[in-house]
Amino acid sequence: MYRDLPKIGLLGGGQLGRMLLQAGVDLDFQISCLDPDSEAPCHRLAYEFKQGSFQDFDTVYQFGQFYDLISIEIEHVNIDALEKLEAEGKQVFPQPHLLRMIQDKRTQKQFFQQYGFPTADFRLIESREEIKEHIDFLPAYQKLGKGGYDGKGVQLIAHEGQISDGFDAPGLLEKAVEFEKELAVIVARNIHGEVKAFPTVEMVFHPVQNLVEFLISPAAISEDVEKQAVDIATRLIQEMKMVGLLAVEMFLTKDGQVLINEVAPRPHNSGHQTIRANMTSQYEQHLRAIAGLPLGDTSTSVFAGMLNLLGEPGHTGKVKYEGLSEALAIPGVFPFLYGKKITKPFRKMGHVSIIAESREAVEEKANQVKNIIRVIS
Amino acid sequence: MYRDLPKIGLLGGGQLGRMLLQAGVDLDFQISCLDPDSEAPCHRLAYEFKQGSFQDFDTVYQFGQFYDLISIEIEHVNIDALEKLEAEGKQVFPQPHLLRMIQDKRTQKQFFQQYGFPTADFRLIESREEIKEHIDFLPAYQKLGKGGYDGKGVQLIAHEGQISDGFDAPGLLEKAVEFEKELAVIVARNIHGEVKAFPTVEMVFHPVQNLVEFLISPAAISEDVEKQAVDIATRLIQEMKMVGLLAVEMFLTKDGQVLINEVAPRPHNSGHQTIRANMTSQYEQHLRAIAGLPLGDTSTSVFAGMLNLLGEPGHTGKVKYEGLSEALAIPGVFPFLYGKKITKPFRKMGHVSIIAESREAVEEKANQVKNIIRVIS
Repeated sequence: MYRDLPKIGLLGGGQLGRMLLQAGVDLDFQISCLDPDSEAPCHRLAYEFKQGSFQDFDTVYQFGQFYDLISIEIEHVNIDALEKLEAEGKQVFPQPHLLRMIQDKRTQKQFFQQYGFPTADFRLIESREEIKEHIDFLPAYQKLGKGGYDGKGVQLIAHEGQISDGFDAPGLLEKAVEFEKELAVIVARNIHGEVKAFPTVEMVFHPVQNLVEFLISPAAISEDVEKQAVDIATRLIQEMKMVGLLAVEMFLTKDGQVLINEVAPRPHNSGHQTIRANMTSQYEQHLRAIAGLPLGDTSTSVFAGMLNLLGEPGHTGKVKYEGLSEALAIPGVFPFLYGKKITKPFRKMGHVSIIAESREAVEEKANQVKNIIRVIS
Repeated sequence: MYRDLPKIGLLGGGQLGRMLLQAGVDLDFQISCLDPDSEAPCHRLAYEFKQGSFQDFDTVYQFGQFYDLISIEIEHVNIDALEKLEAEGKQVFPQPHLLRMIQDKRTQKQFFQQYGFPTADFRLIESREEIKEHIDFLPAYQKLGKGGYDGKGVQLIAHEGQISDGFDAPGLLEKAVEFEKELAVIVARNIHGEVKAFPTVEMVFHPVQNLVEFLISPAAISEDVEKQAVDIATRLIQEMKMVGLLAVEMFLTKDGQVLINEVAPRPHNSGHQTIRANMTSQYEQHLRAIAGLPLGDTSTSVFAGMLNLLGEPGHTGKVKYEGLSEALAIPGVFPFLYGKKITKPFRKMGHVSIIAESREAVEEKANQVKNIIRVIS
């Protein structure tokens, strides 16, 4: 039967939104964006681009009136407005109550615990002062309940002497786990209950900035670990009954256990390479999931890498990408630039996807690219 | 060294332009379009969309003032204006004198002949009346010199009795060749003289409409024929010194000879599947070529098919795509809809790319999709 695709209103107009719009062209999705920045990465590509705050109740509620389906590319949005839109009969995917649960790392952790998902041990705390009640629990990572992103809002408290470095805000202490690798599985579920996971990938974080710096797909892990990781992500999205795309970040501990770290209910930095490396990209999958379409084949038959292009320290201002032409000369190297006008130190300005026939070749090309491309002002 | 990407003005805003814009997002190309239809497939996606005729001298000349580099997605454009822009120092790729040569099938054929490229024998004619002077040359295809596209402007004149069906306009008679297969090679060349060809594909034409109906990549041909086809395309773009993308349609004769049929100086229907099946798509390659960037890797490691979605006969009006959801449930099936509001019989409304592990699997899925998707009003 013929069915019109829903007109989509998207909260957020950043790079994830931009790649969603790009993927949406194939099926002629009409996707409009709300973002406070008039020059956000989506501003020329959205069907309609509306400038405004996605954290403001009235703005989000009004924006939602114009579309059949509301979705997000960032989870720090006004959920009250989304709940009202949902109550009034709009489709809102992922569902607002799940966004609420995920927005706060404390309720996220409690959800994992309540449903028996493996995750590092933790203690809820209300303030810096309270850390002192958990000296025995250290070393631990203190995480802000709300507002953290891209490595911000996370702080290692290795011992009592570092408590003064901690945040003075509600959050949690998470037992520092000795891990072998950080893994991620992106999984999608549509309204019909169909679920599909992408193969597990492996993340390498920047030691200081705590941003994903380099990613390899598929992860070099045993079949057993792959199964554990995919099972956890699959069961999690099923337990949540979420409609949309869920990125599940995990630790592989030194003793071979897979623990959930945290989740994001949207396309994720750990899935950029799927555009070039997998049959279906995470962006197309998000759209298929929220629009109630059959999910796409997630398989891959190549090795892929993904390198974030971060603004060079010491450079703030109109962006320039140095070395682009040289990098494009390497076969299988595909830069993606986000169209942000201004670079700042460590701002995500783009990424590079790398495709090759072996993991070693991916790593080699990644090291080349790292020395070639510079994001400066 | 850092170099800004050129701001591109594109003549034409149809589906080829749309897929160029989509590919251009990756490197943040600013591409603006000129098209007479205010709702052309590019109208929401172009950086700037200007409504106007790309066949009108003044319109094209004025449009060109705003950009660093002028390119095309259709060759039936005002070449005088492009030549003036070029003479005044604008970059115009592909070069206007080559567009002029290609625009007229007579000068195209003469070029092939002059430079010793294999092509079916032909006779230039000025009118229907003149066909009578070439009775011995029949059966032949009469081709209009100018204005033909998508199978229009081509007419089989099998014998004297069919002369009255011929066009009464300047064109040529091309000896009807008994061919085994129709092949196509897309090749790119940048200003530095770098040349890269995509693997040869095989086209199956609609018996009545003479439109590409189904395509398979790579072509099932011997290594020798593959080499012949790629060599011809490579030598041709080198001989033309063209900057851009050239689609070379060829016949494989029953005795194993490869003959050039005709060429198009832009992304082509026979390269749609490269978006999903090849390391670099023809659209990205066009942009790399005209912008003076290194050309991308054209290799493929899968079997791919491409099926045009044509408007169903008997349906004219607001388009509906029937069966989309059902088709999306088949792994490796990727529909592309062009965003055209109105369907007409045999109008190109979209295409479907199909990826599989064998040629047989591609054909099987294509037959499924053919019976599922209908473009109706």
